[in-house]
Amino acid sequence: MPESRIYTAALIVIGDEILSGRTHDKNIAQIATWLGVQGIRLKEVRVVADDTPAIVEAVNTLRVKHDYLFTTGGIGPTHDDITVDAIAEALGVGVVVHPEARTILEGYYESRGGLNEARLRMARVPEGADLIPNRYTGAPGIRHGNVFIMAGVPQITAGMLDALSGTLEGGALMLSETLGCWCAESEVAELLRLTEKDHVTCQIGSYPFWKEGRGGANFVIRSVDADDLAACSRALAAGLEAMARPVIPGGI
Amino acid sequence: MPESRIYTAALIVIGDEILSGRTHDKNIAQIATWLGVQGIRLKEVRVVADDTPAIVEAVNTLRVKHDYLFTTGGIGPTHDDITVDAIAEALGVGVVVHPEARTILEGYYESRGGLNEARLRMARVPEGADLIPNRYTGAPGIRHGNVFIMAGVPQITAGMLDALSGTLEGGALMLSETLGCWCAESEVAELLRLTEKDHVTCQIGSYPFWKEGRGGANFVIRSVDADDLAACSRALAAGLEAMARPVIPGGI
Repeated sequence: MPESRIYTAALIVIGDEILSGRTHDKNIAQIATWLGVQGIRLKEVRVVADDTPAIVEAVNTLRVKHDYLFTTGGIGPTHDDITVDAIAEALGVGVVVHPEARTILEGYYESRGGLNEARLRMARVPEGADLIPNRYTGAPGIRHGNVFIMAGVPQITAGMLDALSGTLEGGALMLSETLGCWCAESEVAELLRLTEKDHVTCQIGSYPFWKEGRGGANFVIRSVDADDLAACSRALAAGLEAMARPVIPGGI
Repeated sequence: MPESRIYTAALIVIGDEILSGRTHDKNIAQIATWLGVQGIRLKEVRVVADDTPAIVEAVNTLRVKHDYLFTTGGIGPTHDDITVDAIAEALGVGVVVHPEARTILEGYYESRGGLNEARLRMARVPEGADLIPNRYTGAPGIRHGNVFIMAGVPQITAGMLDALSGTLEGGALMLSETLGCWCAESEVAELLRLTEKDHVTCQIGSYPFWKEGRGGANFVIRSVDADDLAACSRALAAGLEAMARPVIPGGI
């Protein structure tokens, strides 16, 4: 198959609530999975506090290293929502009220007590930005160049990702197959290493677990080449069976 | 109360399985919560791939910025477990087999087929390191200076954290109180801002949610000063009640 350019992305999760352990992040897995479907690889994630210098540094490091940069969190109406201002500072632009965002919020809050100063904060964007629709609560996400500013609430981020689906340029899809095995990964480590070596487009990840009181592992084979992926998966399954380790296709 | 030094930590989550979206990370919240109890604040997290240069860069950036650096993942017996070698490279030391780790693994695997080459990989440490006991599977965690190398499997990491409890120097505990409210945070944003301003040791985080078909928010007040925390919490509750927004202590 022809070589295709690899598209990469980074994610910045913004929020003291993640760093305090109070909230379990769900956006990393959600955005990672969504990016995979777009043919874009999530290469790194940073979780930073609600702290302007920390956000500015992360944004300016990551937006030039990757094709796309996503952020989650900190775009609500309260005093601790500083993401828009911090990203504008990172981009070296001002903050303006986006007319379309204002119209959207006016419509959304018409039957909910009207637009107040706090709610109007959610219409503020870094100058030059476009909006990402949010079907749930009116307040839109924001796109500025290759930076995508999303909500912290996972359900709202899901709606914004849905609105973006198919609009970003990506490369070949990363394909994967999973084989589960009730064995210790340390028993089959050499088989894994040699099988990966024999299939140059493939990477094999080994993920041990404890379930129902016993140990096992899932082996995830990844490649952009469907034929090599299938061959690698067959070779690994045959190798495990030859060691009397029954294979469970699809994983455990 | 006397000023006390603030102790900070960073965490590096190592693993392609997190960046692909296949595995939902549980170590960030687990380690964040545990650090809080030790009087140490988790200030930033990075998720990086199973890639030596990415690990080396993250380790060397974060170990000098914070009192403590934790890593999770990549210390198993298979070819994709490269954390120990990458951290040794970052620290500028060699990799050696730790005699005590070897003894532990010999004992653990005595009734499980014996120590093979793959299993012996789990006794390798950056030169000069100490071990962190792991009561579950034998293979220990590793401490080298202020760098703590933990497992990727959350249950195993939990055991290692348990072994470390009370052994790290920390500062004043961050205390918190949560008030829940069936209101839109945008209705009370000004109250939140002013209440925080009146209580200089406190930070108020506002976390909106949708549950049972309606919106609400939890307000988390954090401080190292118990008296100021209680005063801030009372003031916020009174302010919400004055706006006819019933408060649910402890959060929703």
